[in-house]
Amino acid sequence: MKIIVVGAHGTLGKAICDELSPRHDIVSAGRSKGDVTVDIMSPESIKAMYEKVGSVDAVVCAAGDAYFGRLEELTPEHNEIAVQSKLKGQINLVLIGKDYVNDRGSFTLTTGIIMDDPILGGISSAMAGGAVRAFVQAAAIELPRGIRINDVSPNVLEESMDSYAPFFPGFEPVPAARAAKAYRKSVEGAQTGQTYKVY
Amino acid sequence: MKIIVVGAHGTLGKAICDELSPRHDIVSAGRSKGDVTVDIMSPESIKAMYEKVGSVDAVVCAAGDAYFGRLEELTPEHNEIAVQSKLKGQINLVLIGKDYVNDRGSFTLTTGIIMDDPILGGISSAMAGGAVRAFVQAAAIELPRGIRINDVSPNVLEESMDSYAPFFPGFEPVPAARAAKAYRKSVEGAQTGQTYKVY
Ligand SMILES: NC(=O)c1ccc[n+]([C@@H]2O[C@H](COP(=O)([O-])OP(=O)(O)OC[C@H]3O[C@@H](n4cnc5c(N)ncnc54)[C@H](OP(=O)(O)O)[C@@H]3O)[C@@H](O)[C@H]2O)c1
Ligand SMILES: NC(=O)c1ccc[n+]([C@@H]2O[C@H](COP(=O)([O-])OP(=O)(O)OC[C@H]3O[C@@H](n4cnc5c(N)ncnc54)[C@H](OP(=O)(O)O)[C@@H]3O)[C@@H](O)[C@H]2O)c1
Repeated sequence: MKIIVVGAHGTLGKAICDELSPRHDIVSAGRSKGDVTVDIMSPESIKAMYEKVGSVDAVVCAAGDAYFGRLEELTPEHNEIAVQSKLKGQINLVLIGKDYVNDRGSFTLTTGIIMDDPILGGISSAMAGGAVRAFVQAAAIELPRGIRINDVSPNVLEESMDSYAPFFPGFEPVPAARAAKAYRKSVEGAQTGQTYKVY
Repeated sequence: MKIIVVGAHGTLGKAICDELSPRHDIVSAGRSKGDVTVDIMSPESIKAMYEKVGSVDAVVCAAGDAYFGRLEELTPEHNEIAVQSKLKGQINLVLIGKDYVNDRGSFTLTTGIIMDDPILGGISSAMAGGAVRAFVQAAAIELPRGIRINDVSPNVLEESMDSYAPFFPGFEPVPAARAAKAYRKSVEGAQTGQTYKVY
């Protein structure tokens, strides 16, 4: 399959590429580097990416920023980062991309454990995850031509614990390679409307 | 208690006011009428509302628009209505309002059954509901001074079936007065971080 991986050079994205590349043609996409560059915060940039890459069998997104900070100081402006990036960025990859995905292709988006199991300072990212999960479930019953959609909700990754450990006390980190298997399940399997929890 | 009800003159809002007004002082708020007018899509307008009303014991939101339409035709621009209104409008009522709510006060927001049980054409509203639910759960562990937050997720309302019936085949509509009881539970009870499903 020809698969776009957005965020291919990130912590999670690298592991997804390692999992998928032995059997598929990966088109890596990212903000600053990749086979194609894209800023998912811009619908025009998303459209330009699809125009450049052409039709694909699967779109995987492992990109999406959010502001981390306590509610006390969380302003509408801070929250806007997650709205524009992790939330609308991922959703627009689907709204704009559905015409570029081949019959029986798929979308796989990324949420995260804190939408189920909140941490201090994670409100904005949790909000985006909740939006993406509900979108996935609702879009699954409407996508045409057998196109499927799922999201993967990883626990905190082992590879991110150097910087994230203080925010995730008592969480059991998972290797990015384990989370990557859920993306494979979504891309190569037949399910739709699912949230794969890698907890 | 002194309670702001945003969307007080809507189908759901009217029932909430009927349920709460025998025991509380209601400040009705709406876009076009009410004791105070507010456009929840504008942070400045939300701030002006709180400045005008002063401190309150509870904020209830029964307002929030979304575009209804099939995925095939759903553009990022259509989706923006739910992002600005039902999603950010409600969340900004909390981010901006937390300093105006008295100790042990509460916020109660509105989601809806289609975030759990999707219908054709309801993607955008489902997405907003999922975001609000995750926000509520995450904000509950951070709100200061014993302030609580919940959301109510009503099934389709009997009072709305004249226009909504074709979109909700097989759903069992609930009276708005029944949904209103969940808002009372949220305002007068002690729970936080909950989604009250009135299905
Ligand atoms: N790390 C964890 O523990 C963890 C756990 C659960 C969920 N997640 C979620 O997984 C996703 C990826 O996390 P990560 O830790 O792998 O992040 P990361 O290492 O920072 O990588 C993110 C990647 O996405 C790209 N990207 C960021 N914003 C973009 C944009 N607007 N347009 C296009 N590409 C963009 C970045 O490219 P540039 O570097 O070029 O900007 C980078 O390659 C996030 O949604 C995160 O919330 C992560
Ligand atoms: N009706 C149902 O069957 C049902 C079921 C589940 C969930 N819900 C949810 O419940 C909420 C209310 O639904 P409803 O049927 O009661 O709607 P409604 O009858 O249309 O009433 C909405 C109210 O909110 C106000 N409003 C709308 N946008 C606003 C804004 N930007 N700023 C301030 N006020 C605004 C309206 O004021 P103006 O008229 O002045 O604009 C109106 O009073 C929505 O989130 C809806 O998704 C409804």
